[in-house]
Amino acid sequence: MQRVSFVLKVREERLDDYIARHERVWPDMLDALRGTGWTNYTLFIRPDGMLIGYFETEDLQAALDGMSSTEVNARWQAEMAPFFESLDGKRPDEAFVPLTEVFHLD
Amino acid sequence: MQRVSFVLKVREERLDDYIARHERVWPDMLDALRGTGWTNYTLFIRPDGMLIGYFETEDLQAALDGMSSTEVNARWQAEMAPFFESLDGKRPDEAFVPLTEVFHLD
Repeated sequence: MQRVSFVLKVREERLDDYIARHERVWPDMLDALRGTGWTNYTLFIRPDGMLIGYFETEDLQAALDGMSSTEVNARWQAEMAPFFESLDGKRPDEAFVPLTEVFHLD
Repeated sequence: MQRVSFVLKVREERLDDYIARHERVWPDMLDALRGTGWTNYTLFIRPDGMLIGYFETEDLQAALDGMSSTEVNARWQAEMAPFFESLDGKRPDEAFVPLTEVFHLD
């Protein structure tokens, strides 16, 4: 099992809408995440818009590639892109860089 | 079960040493974490020193208070404090602010 964390930055002025959108993530988006191995997936927000993602997966590359290949992910990421800063033209799911795990206790 | 994430900033020039210290966390510190309800606890580092913590616990306040009451935690936090920026005179475990969960998928 791989533990993965990433950081993105939500535009502060769009934060309330970002949070509201995540209270009603599309069911087919949730199904796609489940079907491609994303488990125990949580997003956390700091008031300034810093977004922390954490999830667990058997194979990170397979989870990323699996989601990338779904049609619903392309639609979701296109809707989410305007909420973020500093994507450099990438989709949100392409812009994130996994952080390095330095400690774990079960 | 509560899922908790927090962010701290390790001094970039101390990062290698911080990582090395976390490869050999004291066994009594690990026992104290386990004994006060810290589970599935992971620390992640970004190359600039941003530190992300994630853990799961039945009761966050009890986990924090439990660790605070241990002698080993006082020793550990005193050793870790110089590695961090912006603690404002607090111990690292007092300086962290839990982030707000905005999405979860099991």
